[in-house]
Amino acid sequence: MTLPKAVKMVEMGPRDGLQNEPTPVPPEVKARLIDMLADAGLTAIEAGSFVSPKWVPQMAGTAEVLSLIHRKPGVSYPVLVPNLKGMEAAEAAEGVHEIAVFGAASESFSKKNINCSIAESLDRFKPVAERALANGWKVRGYVSCVLGCPYEGEIAPEKVAEVAAALLTMGCYEISLGDTIGTGTPAKAQAMVDAVAAKVPVEKLAAHFHDTYGQALANIYAVLERGVAVVDSSVSGLGGCPYAKGASGNVASEDVLYMLNGLGIETGVDLEKLMAAGAYIGEHLNRPSGSKVARAKAA
Amino acid sequence: MTLPKAVKMVEMGPRDGLQNEPTPVPPEVKARLIDMLADAGLTAIEAGSFVSPKWVPQMAGTAEVLSLIHRKPGVSYPVLVPNLKGMEAAEAAEGVHEIAVFGAASESFSKKNINCSIAESLDRFKPVAERALANGWKVRGYVSCVLGCPYEGEIAPEKVAEVAAALLTMGCYEISLGDTIGTGTPAKAQAMVDAVAAKVPVEKLAAHFHDTYGQALANIYAVLERGVAVVDSSVSGLGGCPYAKGASGNVASEDVLYMLNGLGIETGVDLEKLMAAGAYIGEHLNRPSGSKVARAKAA
Repeated sequence: MTLPKAVKMVEMGPRDGLQNEPTPVPPEVKARLIDMLADAGLTAIEAGSFVSPKWVPQMAGTAEVLSLIHRKPGVSYPVLVPNLKGMEAAEAAEGVHEIAVFGAASESFSKKNINCSIAESLDRFKPVAERALANGWKVRGYVSCVLGCPYEGEIAPEKVAEVAAALLTMGCYEISLGDTIGTGTPAKAQAMVDAVAAKVPVEKLAAHFHDTYGQALANIYAVLERGVAVVDSSVSGLGGCPYAKGASGNVASEDVLYMLNGLGIETGVDLEKLMAAGAYIGEHLNRPSGSKVARAKAA
Repeated sequence: MTLPKAVKMVEMGPRDGLQNEPTPVPPEVKARLIDMLADAGLTAIEAGSFVSPKWVPQMAGTAEVLSLIHRKPGVSYPVLVPNLKGMEAAEAAEGVHEIAVFGAASESFSKKNINCSIAESLDRFKPVAERALANGWKVRGYVSCVLGCPYEGEIAPEKVAEVAAALLTMGCYEISLGDTIGTGTPAKAQAMVDAVAAKVPVEKLAAHFHDTYGQALANIYAVLERGVAVVDSSVSGLGGCPYAKGASGNVASEDVLYMLNGLGIETGVDLEKLMAAGAYIGEHLNRPSGSKVARAKAA
């Protein structure tokens, strides 16, 4: 049982985070946040989402965000693209080189969330991925509900593996496994990763664990033990406000980094600068930090 | 690497928890809390502390608490006893059968906290332990600062092992290893437990990890992997209010139990009843729960 020597941290704050915060954030503030995160050493920062502003008003202005950021060499700024309409918007925007598509391991969740079956969603992503690859872009795949579904309860690890394998076949270079409702625990997380790793090389897997039930860091540690070396998190726990009911529960990047630092795992990310980015957006949102590390260090 | 089949949860809320809450709690409320915790299935509940009320006003009234609780067969209600004066108070109180003594693995912390060296503190505990054992009582030992000290920084695992071994020799049946400042991370926690287990049988060790930096559950999981099968925690995260600066950071019992349940580890504790106890004391303190599980389930 050896832990990875290095971990890539994928920053979710500007997209998955701000998408779930009640207060909309203007593009210039998002761009400044993204620049601060890049300055902290993060090399993958989700910058926004080309979804309908009718459904997700928090993500309006993604094209403007992309025009405002100061691109740093070696940093990827992926945007979420759910369909061909989103793809057209991504192509019209400035400097997109990577997109993400978002599938589910639960039929009920897929139906309720994007109004189609898992198979239909994969059919919908296929031309999107093809076009992205033809553009020379990278495609990241997400699988949600990998450790539980709000409608179905437990999800079979084999189902997760099946969807992950389909995304790999479609050309995704990395598959992020999302514990969307945060009900996972360490042994189940390991069993799920083992099932997926039987079909997708573990180097291509990312852990995207929500902290709704406080389990995220334990689960992340458990899957590091299984060789997962990519971890999604959200600065200041954006999108998982610890004071709100029904919070989505993104795990705070600062707390993940603190653990990785303690484990002697390289990330290239600077904790102080990361906390500065968290403080910047926290001030804008007038929201206390969702990171225990940030709160402890401010005490 | 096999996890323990069963874990004993030792409840810290009424003592380590309330001792660190700003609002003092009357004995009848403490007693009711303790009864609710016993009803939830906890078999070890720290009931209070015979320390000077001048220094720790929150613990005044421990004798009254002991006279008010409805003792449940099979449940232990230990009290903290720092010296012979405390021992006399414990003997004068009703129904004490177990005490706890509190040492440190850091010289500077020992000096600042109890104004003597580690060796002097052990000399002071010795007659206390002897007298307790002569009374037919059990003695639990604590070691604080096992993964870091606010004054010294890192603490050598061998130093922790040395203090733990001295407490074992003194007659302690269980040694609780406290990450007082919560700076530990999983690999360091494992290395510390390995060092201690070389001198004290692992069955006699308890993990007492604070969540100040969000690391407690990951650390607990990591030491379960090393065979530790006793875990200290505090209902509702009492003593570690997530909204206060400089919180001591007790890990919430509900969140620990949720993880243990998910791992299929037996505890005999009922989550719903445990949350009811947390809600009771939270209402009294007018304080939101420090347990993410309790907050998620209330959402």
